[in-house]
Amino acid sequence: MSDEKLTPQNVDFSEWYNQIVQRAEMADYAPVRGCMVVRPYGWALWENIQQALDRRFKETGHVNAAFPLFIPMSFLEKEKEHVEGFSPELAVVTIGGGEKLEEPLVVRPTSETIIGYMYSKWIKSYRDLPVLINQWGNVVRWELRTRLFLRTLEFYWQEGHTAHASEQEARAETMRMLGVYADFAINEGAVPVIQGVKSQTEKFAGANMSTTIEAMMGDTRALQSGTSHFLGQNFARAFNIQFLDENNTLQYAWTTSWGLSTRFIGAIIMTHGDDQGLILPPRLAPIQAVIIPIFKSNPETAIVMETVRRVEAELKAAGVRVKVDDRTEVTPGFKFNDWEMRGVPLRIEIGPKDIEKGTVALARRDKPGREGKSFVPQAGLAATVTDLLIVIQKSLLERATAFRDSHIFDPKDYSELTEVVQNGWAYSYWCESTECEAKVKEDTKATTRCIPLDQSAGKGKCIVCGKEAERKVYFARAY
Amino acid sequence: MSDEKLTPQNVDFSEWYNQIVQRAEMADYAPVRGCMVVRPYGWALWENIQQALDRRFKETGHVNAAFPLFIPMSFLEKEKEHVEGFSPELAVVTIGGGEKLEEPLVVRPTSETIIGYMYSKWIKSYRDLPVLINQWGNVVRWELRTRLFLRTLEFYWQEGHTAHASEQEARAETMRMLGVYADFAINEGAVPVIQGVKSQTEKFAGANMSTTIEAMMGDTRALQSGTSHFLGQNFARAFNIQFLDENNTLQYAWTTSWGLSTRFIGAIIMTHGDDQGLILPPRLAPIQAVIIPIFKSNPETAIVMETVRRVEAELKAAGVRVKVDDRTEVTPGFKFNDWEMRGVPLRIEIGPKDIEKGTVALARRDKPGREGKSFVPQAGLAATVTDLLIVIQKSLLERATAFRDSHIFDPKDYSELTEVVQNGWAYSYWCESTECEAKVKEDTKATTRCIPLDQSAGKGKCIVCGKEAERKVYFARAY
Repeated sequence: MSDEKLTPQNVDFSEWYNQIVQRAEMADYAPVRGCMVVRPYGWALWENIQQALDRRFKETGHVNAAFPLFIPMSFLEKEKEHVEGFSPELAVVTIGGGEKLEEPLVVRPTSETIIGYMYSKWIKSYRDLPVLINQWGNVVRWELRTRLFLRTLEFYWQEGHTAHASEQEARAETMRMLGVYADFAINEGAVPVIQGVKSQTEKFAGANMSTTIEAMMGDTRALQSGTSHFLGQNFARAFNIQFLDENNTLQYAWTTSWGLSTRFIGAIIMTHGDDQGLILPPRLAPIQAVIIPIFKSNPETAIVMETVRRVEAELKAAGVRVKVDDRTEVTPGFKFNDWEMRGVPLRIEIGPKDIEKGTVALARRDKPGREGKSFVPQAGLAATVTDLLIVIQKSLLERATAFRDSHIFDPKDYSELTEVVQNGWAYSYWCESTECEAKVKEDTKATTRCIPLDQSAGKGKCIVCGKEAERKVYFARAY
Repeated sequence: MSDEKLTPQNVDFSEWYNQIVQRAEMADYAPVRGCMVVRPYGWALWENIQQALDRRFKETGHVNAAFPLFIPMSFLEKEKEHVEGFSPELAVVTIGGGEKLEEPLVVRPTSETIIGYMYSKWIKSYRDLPVLINQWGNVVRWELRTRLFLRTLEFYWQEGHTAHASEQEARAETMRMLGVYADFAINEGAVPVIQGVKSQTEKFAGANMSTTIEAMMGDTRALQSGTSHFLGQNFARAFNIQFLDENNTLQYAWTTSWGLSTRFIGAIIMTHGDDQGLILPPRLAPIQAVIIPIFKSNPETAIVMETVRRVEAELKAAGVRVKVDDRTEVTPGFKFNDWEMRGVPLRIEIGPKDIEKGTVALARRDKPGREGKSFVPQAGLAATVTDLLIVIQKSLLERATAFRDSHIFDPKDYSELTEVVQNGWAYSYWCESTECEAKVKEDTKATTRCIPLDQSAGKGKCIVCGKEAERKVYFARAY
C-alpha cells in the first residue's frame, strides 16, 4: 500500500477506480496485455459472491459441471448470429504438442456451442428434461480496451445452460434466473439493480431475448451486471438437440443461458466506494470487522492483547469474519487508513482506557468521522457487531438506491434527454426502432440499457421520433 | 444408463474403468481429442474434494488467488529444465482478435513462471514473506494417450505456490503440504497412499526435489495422486524474486509448488470400485444414502411415501447427503443396480412391511448381498445411518490397505523383482543410479514410484546392480 492520497472521485472517477483496485490489492495487471491477476483479497470477495450465487442456483434445482476450454472453430459457425457476434473477439490455438492443428481450436468466449453439442448426445426423451446445468470457469474475449474486472481478455464467471421441453418453461427459467441475479445483487451486494429486457441491438449474439440487471455506478454510468437469455430453438437446431415427447414425436428443445462474472466486483467497487477507498457490503466482505489494538508501552500490550484475542474469539464463534491487525511496525493511524481503503465495514478499536471501562470503540466505514463512531460495552459485543453489520448492509443499499433514484430523469423532450444522460439516466418512452436507438447513441454516447419489466401501463410518444410508443426504456452511458 | 453388464475387472480392468466412468455419468468424452466433460455427478464429487482440501489449505495459512491462463512463451524459456520438460506438451495461441500475435501465448501447463513473475513484483522485504497462495483452475498439457480423469489435455486442479525467506522454511512447507495430501487421501478418500520422494528422473521439471503420494489401484498399478515440490531458488533466480532481509541484504527467495488434480477421482474409482460399479467413500460421496420406496398398488404409495419423506427430512437435518429415487417408470430392482453402479455407500429400502414394523432395510454398497444388509428401527435412524457411514468409510480404508499390503513384495533378487512387478509393487534397496532405474523400466515397464520417508534405518544391496544402497524404493508399473 502506498501512503499517497487517492485521486478524488469527482476529479477523475476512472483514475480513482484504477488506483483503488490496485492499492487495495484486489487485482493487478498481468504481463499479458489485457489480462488480470485477481489477488487474494479480490479472490476472497469473489469466493463469497460464488457461494451466495451457488446456493441460489442449487436451491432452484441446478447442478454444476465442467465443459472443455477448447471449442472447434466449426462449432461456432453453426449459429449464424453467434459467430458474427463473437468471431472478432476470439483467441485461437493453432499449435498443439509442437504440431500445427488440422482444425484450429477457439478458447471459449462462452459455451453455448460445446454444451449444445453435449446436450444433443445426452438428451433423448422428455424424461431427460429439463437439464439444468451451471459451470464456474474462465472465458476469453479478445477485447481491445480493457479495465481490471470490468473488461479483461480472460475473466471468471458462471454460465448456466438449460434445456426444456417447452417454450413456456424456457421463458420461465430465463426470468427465474434474472430474478436470482437481482435478488443476489440487491440483498448480498447492496447494489440496487434494475431488471429488464435488452433491445434487439444490445442482446446476446444468438438469443431471441436477453434480459439484464443494470446498476448505476458512482459516476452515474450504467454497468450491465448479469444477463439471462432466452435462446429459443436456435442452438437446439444448430446442434440438433432433439427429444421424443410424450406422444413419441421428435421435438427440438428450448434453451436458455445466463451469466454473471467478476465484473460484479467492479459494480461493488463503483457503487459503494468513496474518496477513502472501498466500502464492501458486510454480507460479501472477506473481512467484516477489523480489530486494531491500541497501546504505547510494553505492559499495556499484554493487557490489551488479552482482551483483543478474547473479543476475536467471541466474534469468530458468532460467525463474524474478523481480523486482528497486530502489526507492530505501523501506527494505529496508518492501520485505520489502510483498512478504510480496503473497505472493511467495521473497525473495532481496543485500548487501555477501553479495558478499564469494559468498552470498545466501533467505527463504521460507511459513515466517516464522529457520525459513524460509537463506544459500546464489551459485554454482548458479538450481538452488537452482528446487528450493526446488518444495519450497515441496509444503509449501503438505501444510500445507493437514493443516489440512483436522484439521477434518473424523465426528460420532457429530446433536447433535455441529451443533457440529462451526461449526468444520469433518462427513463423515456421509446418506439423500439433501431434508428432512434442509434441516433441517441450517435448524439450522446448513451445506449438503451433495458426495458424494465414492471412499468405502469399506458402509452406515450417516443422521446426521439415522437411516434407512438408502448414501453419506456433507460438510456444511459455505460461501461 | 445401459442395462448391459460391466466388463469384469479381472477380464479387462482398463475396459471396466472406461465403462464405469461413462455409465455412472462421471465424465464423457468431449468433441475435442483428449478433452473431457465432467458431468454433474463427477463434478459434485470434485466439489467435495475441493472443499476437503481447501479447508486444509486455509487451516495451514494459505489463501486463494487467480493468475492468467495465458503465459508468454518467453517466460517458460527462463528456467531451462522447466521448458525442456513442458515444451513438447504445449497448446499455443497464435491468433487473437483476428490478428497474428507478435509473441505466441502458451495455455498454462502449470503456473510457476507467471506466478514467479508476479511474486517478483510483490515481494520486496522479508516482511512480505512467506507468500502462501493457492489457485484452483484448469491447465492444459498436450498428451498423446489420454484417459478420462487420469490423463486429459485439459484437467482441473489446484496449484499452490509459496515463497519463503529461507531454505529450511521452504523445505518444511514442501513436506507440510505432502502431509496435507496424505491426510486428505487417507481420511477423506480412504485411499491408503504412501508418501515419499521422487527419483531425479521422475521429479518435476524445474524442482530440486519432488515428493509424491502414491496409491495402488485395483489392478496393482501405481497412480501418482498428488505432488509437492521444493523448487530451491531456481524460479526465484529465473524471475528475480528478491527481498531485503533483516540485515538489509538482497536475497533470492526459496519457493515451493504443490498440486492435486481431477486425477484423484480416478484414484477413488480404481481403489474402491468392483464389478457392480463405483464404490464412493462416504466422506466424499455426492449422495451418501439413497432411499428406494417399495410399493405395488396405489393405496400403498401414499403410505410409503409419507414415511420416505419423513426419513429424508430427518437424514437431511442430520447432515446426511440423501436422495429419494421416486421414479415410477423403473422397478426397484433397476434402481438397486443403478445406484450400486453409481457407488452410493448406503441404500435404504422402505416398503409396506417396513411401515408396519417401524423398520427400514439398509444395504451397504461395500458388502454385497446378505452380509451388507440389515433391518433397523425407524426410530433413531439418523444416528444409525451416520454411524454406519463412518463404519463404511473405515472399512473401505482397511480393505484398500489390506489389498495394497498383500501386493507389496520384497523380492530376493532381480529375477524375482521382474516377476512381482507384473502383479504388485517391489519394495527394494536401490543404489539411486539412473542406470539401474532405466534397466528396470526397460525390462519390466516398472518405474521408481517413491522413496518412502519413514523407512527403517539400515543399508542393503541394490536389487539391480548389487552395489551398496542406503534407501529402499517402490518399483511399480504406473498409470
